[in-house]
Amino acid sequence: MNSRCIILLAHGSSDKRWCDTFEALAEPTLKGISNSRIAYMELAEPSLESVIHDGVAAGTREFTIVPLFLAAGRHLRKDVPAMIEELERATGASVLLTPPIGDNPLLGLAIKDIVAHQLDQGDDQ
Amino acid sequence: MNSRCIILLAHGSSDKRWCDTFEALAEPTLKGISNSRIAYMELAEPSLESVIHDGVAAGTREFTIVPLFLAAGRHLRKDVPAMIEELERATGASVLLTPPIGDNPLLGLAIKDIVAHQLDQGDDQ
Repeated sequence: MNSRCIILLAHGSSDKRWCDTFEALAEPTLKGISNSRIAYMELAEPSLESVIHDGVAAGTREFTIVPLFLAAGRHLRKDVPAMIEELERATGASVLLTPPIGDNPLLGLAIKDIVAHQLDQGDDQ
Repeated sequence: MNSRCIILLAHGSSDKRWCDTFEALAEPTLKGISNSRIAYMELAEPSLESVIHDGVAAGTREFTIVPLFLAAGRHLRKDVPAMIEELERATGASVLLTPPIGDNPLLGLAIKDIVAHQLDQGDDQ
């Protein structure tokens, strides 16, 4: 059991199909890693704020946010750190922000496998 | 040798750090899969248009675009198909647009591995 809560943070969208894709992307993590959640910055639920407030209410004091973003732009450099500062102040929790998933070399290797898979599918047609 | 050209398509940004992340993500594909390129929709070079025009000039007639996007929004549902239609008309090439990388289950598995890796790093601190 992992006392630290892992939050997969996506941007969010009013388009349900967009959120469905992120929920499918999160599924292996949510199933395989205990005390993990998905949350959205804006435009979709659950919000980052509600996930952290719920976690604190259930006794969690430490959170790690893994951004489901390929690269860091303004959101990850400015908006999310500001949200975290405010949530830490409001709840007393400790919230760690990791680099976005696209900074991890494992993701580039997965992309190569996906491209190879697309090419194989094309050959079958 | 792959006569079809594979294009990894990213959105693009005026922030060089953002593009550097995508170039690192593309590197295993560009090294491992022949006739593969990276291109940007806007705000960075090389553009999709220039990569297709250069490929056609070098004798390539078939292109597969793999979007380096986690989910499909307006860009992939409307803007990129419109760009493709125009490029096919202008060059006579055949351009196939695949689903975004985030639609492939391999990506969700890579995300789980990345989260597990982040947790291990946290334990070492």
